[in-house]
Amino acid sequence: MRVRHSLADVGEFGFLRRLLPSLKRGRGVLVGPGDDCAVVTTGKRILLTTDALVEGVHFERGWLSPEEIGAKAVLVNLSDVAAMGGRPRFLLLSLGVPGSISRTDLERLHRGAERAARRAGAAIVGGNLSAAERLFVSVVVVGEVDKPILRRGARPGDRVYVSGTLGDAAAAVAWLANAGGSRRAAPRRRDLSFLLRRFAAPTPRLESGRRLAAAGVVSAMIDVSDGLVQDLGHICAASRVGAVVREDEVPRSAAYDAVIGADATLSLRGGEDYELLFTVPRAKQARFERLRPRLPDRITLVGEITAGTGSVRVRDRSGRTRRLQSGGFQHFRLA
Amino acid sequence: MRVRHSLADVGEFGFLRRLLPSLKRGRGVLVGPGDDCAVVTTGKRILLTTDALVEGVHFERGWLSPEEIGAKAVLVNLSDVAAMGGRPRFLLLSLGVPGSISRTDLERLHRGAERAARRAGAAIVGGNLSAAERLFVSVVVVGEVDKPILRRGARPGDRVYVSGTLGDAAAAVAWLANAGGSRRAAPRRRDLSFLLRRFAAPTPRLESGRRLAAAGVVSAMIDVSDGLVQDLGHICAASRVGAVVREDEVPRSAAYDAVIGADATLSLRGGEDYELLFTVPRAKQARFERLRPRLPDRITLVGEITAGTGSVRVRDRSGRTRRLQSGGFQHFRLA
Repeated sequence: MRVRHSLADVGEFGFLRRLLPSLKRGRGVLVGPGDDCAVVTTGKRILLTTDALVEGVHFERGWLSPEEIGAKAVLVNLSDVAAMGGRPRFLLLSLGVPGSISRTDLERLHRGAERAARRAGAAIVGGNLSAAERLFVSVVVVGEVDKPILRRGARPGDRVYVSGTLGDAAAAVAWLANAGGSRRAAPRRRDLSFLLRRFAAPTPRLESGRRLAAAGVVSAMIDVSDGLVQDLGHICAASRVGAVVREDEVPRSAAYDAVIGADATLSLRGGEDYELLFTVPRAKQARFERLRPRLPDRITLVGEITAGTGSVRVRDRSGRTRRLQSGGFQHFRLA
Repeated sequence: MRVRHSLADVGEFGFLRRLLPSLKRGRGVLVGPGDDCAVVTTGKRILLTTDALVEGVHFERGWLSPEEIGAKAVLVNLSDVAAMGGRPRFLLLSLGVPGSISRTDLERLHRGAERAARRAGAAIVGGNLSAAERLFVSVVVVGEVDKPILRRGARPGDRVYVSGTLGDAAAAVAWLANAGGSRRAAPRRRDLSFLLRRFAAPTPRLESGRRLAAAGVVSAMIDVSDGLVQDLGHICAASRVGAVVREDEVPRSAAYDAVIGADATLSLRGGEDYELLFTVPRAKQARFERLRPRLPDRITLVGEITAGTGSVRVRDRSGRTRRLQSGGFQHFRLA
């Protein structure tokens, strides 16, 4: 359901925007393309989402173990279900597999996917295996939801929150892509392994997502897959509002600070953190604050929704605001 | 839901067989992996199926127009829904797109997919766009079904039927892969364009599938994607029976005869025809014969189910039977 990676000359956001109006709503389609999941009904509300990991685009094979590739392909999809406040139920895997991959590695990949699904209370119910020149893992999740939280409900004055810390996965990718290249100094093993883990095994915030949705305190929600600025931009565009983010308040891990230093760029623009990004109306602030300590994840206030038309401004510690290009996270490699 | 293409050294059938027992049935999973679609329920019975088209494996880009690639990726999935006797409702597209593909071609691909979905009464509700070195289109269909027709209900004595004609798509691929190579003679344009059309734009037998399922006359059903022998082998393995096919009775098109000649091999073993292959118990034969003339597709008797353990024998016109290797359809190219 997400378009995450800049294609060299395709300009996929524009492309999808142009396509969306042509996708007529069919019978039973409550929410079509353009949010984290589609919402359809055949009696009960059903979430549908798909996302793919592609070798050479999202990872190189040496970066992740087969189990991690399988698990991550599942986890990034579960994150979309979390961002709707839903519950994942059923998964399908579509694999494209080069002949150079051993049967053992394929089994390990599948085991990783299965374990990730099971931990979230979901079952892999089917799949497809094709030959391919480079590995891809495309996953579909079918979920359930009572009241889906969309991207389009944010209003000026709402506060903007994120779960966890941001920029960790991008810091890991920056290190991996540059490994062997020039760096300031080798990072400590503990910091590096924390960042690599954040990249390899994202933690979809399913329980926080469900509890926020159930409490009725959230006006819009998305998961941070393209980077804070870009994904907040998606909420703003869908809600026809603007937003301001305070750079200093964006939560960064100690490992990020140790490996990247004071530069906040990757925490603002780095993708693949799979944290929840959501807005809370002022009128629901008190209820949200009562819920907040009972959520399993750390939640940080990072900014406010303003009037505007989709633009996200970043305010630095000196009080200067700047508008970031919407180009968002550039992947380490473009095909 | 299908494993269609031999991987060079992966042996995917064995691989999937080994994985299946490990896929525990989750809550709401009525039919897990191993049939044309999974059947899940969240109140109503839901079909889930996924299949991918991969450039260089299922097609070369010059063989199919962008619209045809998009449409075919949808149609092969709809065929799985037809083979369960279901009704397609919602689709998701996951695209892997090389930078060399123009925006126009991508829009044409999407338009082809959308038109194919709409004609079947289904709606594309979401998707995902990734960069990739070679084009892939992975589609998921969510369908509805009252009483799914599985592969496992065939019994000795049941008659075996197929819709349409077989071998046309394989004849087209043989011609395309060999174009410029040595051939007996250039085929007539009309014959060739018929075969190419059968390869480029398969016609999922949705209405026949639904009517056969609704009439309750069919004991097992599958679509012919890997070739008659191999797919009948899937029915036999799931049902723990054998089968005999009479080579002379396998329906072949006039174009097949004109381009391929008397050799029946591609009609027995060629993949990608997306016809229905089903079994009818003798006790339901009379009811089936009353239904048959009202079905929109030509239906041909090709053999019988026998005792046995998954083996399919082919009887030629001289009455000799031979057991075909289960290797099935080899794709024109393996990655």
